Amino acid sequence: MQQIGHYQQVISDYFNTLQVVKDPVNLYEPVKYILSLGGKRMRPVLTLMSAEIFNADCREALPAAVAVEIFHNFSLVHDDIMDDAPLRRGNETVHEKWNINTGILSGDAMLIMAYRYFEEYEPETFRSLAKLFSKTALEVCEGQQWDVDFEERNDVTIPEYLKMIEYKTAVLVAAAMKMGGIVAKTSVENCDLIYDFGLNLGIAFQLQDDYLDAFGDPATFGKQVGGDIIENKKTYLYLKALQKADDMSREQLKELFSMQPEDSTEKIELVKNIFTTSGADAETRRAIEEYTHKAFDTLAQLDIEENKKAMLRAFGENLMQRKV
Amino acid sequence: MQQIGHYQQVISDYFNTLQVVKDPVNLYEPVKYILSLGGKRMRPVLTLMSAEIFNADCREALPAAVAVEIFHNFSLVHDDIMDDAPLRRGNETVHEKWNINTGILSGDAMLIMAYRYFEEYEPETFRSLAKLFSKTALEVCEGQQWDVDFEERNDVTIPEYLKMIEYKTAVLVAAAMKMGGIVAKTSVENCDLIYDFGLNLGIAFQLQDDYLDAFGDPATFGKQVGGDIIENKKTYLYLKALQKADDMSREQLKELFSMQPEDSTEKIELVKNIFTTSGADAETRRAIEEYTHKAFDTLAQLDIEENKKAMLRAFGENLMQRKV
Repeated sequence: MQQIGHYQQVISDYFNTLQVVKDPVNLYEPVKYILSLGGKRMRPVLTLMSAEIFNADCREALPAAVAVEIFHNFSLVHDDIMDDAPLRRGNETVHEKWNINTGILSGDAMLIMAYRYFEEYEPETFRSLAKLFSKTALEVCEGQQWDVDFEERNDVTIPEYLKMIEYKTAVLVAAAMKMGGIVAKTSVENCDLIYDFGLNLGIAFQLQDDYLDAFGDPATFGKQVGGDIIENKKTYLYLKALQKADDMSREQLKELFSMQPEDSTEKIELVKNIFTTSGADAETRRAIEEYTHKAFDTLAQLDIEENKKAMLRAFGENLMQRKV
Repeated sequence: MQQIGHYQQVISDYFNTLQVVKDPVNLYEPVKYILSLGGKRMRPVLTLMSAEIFNADCREALPAAVAVEIFHNFSLVHDDIMDDAPLRRGNETVHEKWNINTGILSGDAMLIMAYRYFEEYEPETFRSLAKLFSKTALEVCEGQQWDVDFEERNDVTIPEYLKMIEYKTAVLVAAAMKMGGIVAKTSVENCDLIYDFGLNLGIAFQLQDDYLDAFGDPATFGKQVGGDIIENKKTYLYLKALQKADDMSREQLKELFSMQPEDSTEKIELVKNIFTTSGADAETRRAIEEYTHKAFDTLAQLDIEENKKAMLRAFGENLMQRKV
């Protein structure tokens, strides 16, 4: 799908025209830094793609796309403080490179900067975009809070976990796509359908992230394989294994998830073995497919040309075939 | 001025109708907590007063007023983390009562919640309010960054200091008043004039805060008298004293501001003595008057009834006669 590269180029060109750094430099340098680390720019790409699918010039959606990308980076900066993470995209996190106070304040500035990009639009569109953005941003905070809360709990259910990843990850993917629709001034129905498409694809994407963290190919997976297992993270795989494993395996899994050995090689193997023998890995693959198909089902109802539906479908398939 | 009490009551009643706490409670409890600590609610009072001065029902301005108050409290929560402050309005700060991560995330949620209150208005007003709000919020971040930067610097000039307090404190007072004008749909000229009124009054207010911190009556001043001196804070008084004192006193002042003795009674007396003998105290009082009069001068140009100008003037005089 060569078009993604095209959108990424449009976004990168636009980012290069932005004058992010001004006085006080200690506030804006970290903003420039985190934005320069790049990443796949998946969310703004989706905003541009969505605008074009609803027959607008994708460039019209650039300010909204940038708002989404800056918000996403804001959440990374603040989450990295909360998670005490030293690295982001292979580079030092903002609070590591500077300090926690800089991370807090530069993050705050980014959240506000995101809103300012909507000012490029006239009042009706501005209001629709900002309203969707606020609702989404608050849900992302709620998702992050649940994620924090779940660390302390041993009774997290699968529906609760799905709600958490929906809020923490999927709503922003959904909103990014809906913003393209808003900018293109398509119907409310189309806006809601593309939101649902993005939401289900976003959930599938996050479940796949959980899956690849354990079963991904170390050669192509961007992060350390087994990272979630090392950190005793209660992912879908883990919760499903607790549900499906026999009593002995369940107790063994709980035991393994109560320790953090120096060398985790053996722990990772034992846990992955329980994930497989319990059928949790197959169940996770099934859930990924289910949410992917849910997303594809909404395509049928979208009031757009068939070739554009095919494009969205190709994008979804491409995303779901990723090994990274 | 009994009307302030009326506005405070209207705000308090409105706050009581808001359902702040919902799931996840760990995100929203701290929001409720910080908002319940009260304070004088000066900023939202100004929004209501301003709306009424431009002939709107003050209740129309309530959502905008609440947005300003929630933003102000957001900035307190994040600033208190950065300043490592244990107390706020005589109670534990959010990060003390919970933890730093909760302070960061609940603060983020408040910043977003503030924007949502503008959704009560139709698109044109929504856009004007949100645009002014974003500009102001970013300036407040910049002011906070300068304040942090100044701690490390020994060459801060008085114009730089004035710019810092303008951004950190005065622009929000100014924006609070302009929002009243926007809601009341008064002219652009009136909106800009009331902004200038608030801006200059805000600067005067902050300078007075600096002054009272050293020379306030311990019986009526809310905070510990001499707090800025204990913390070696480079306030207007300090910078002016450096400028006006003779060489010996200047060196003594620098020396005093390089230490933090266990018992600061003597240090406070020595510093205050230099503030007085150098004439810095008189200069500070002069600057407070200058900014107050600058504010009052804009009243003359405002296109409103005389009795309303008198009301604004009375408010300003009342604020500037405060001992707390």
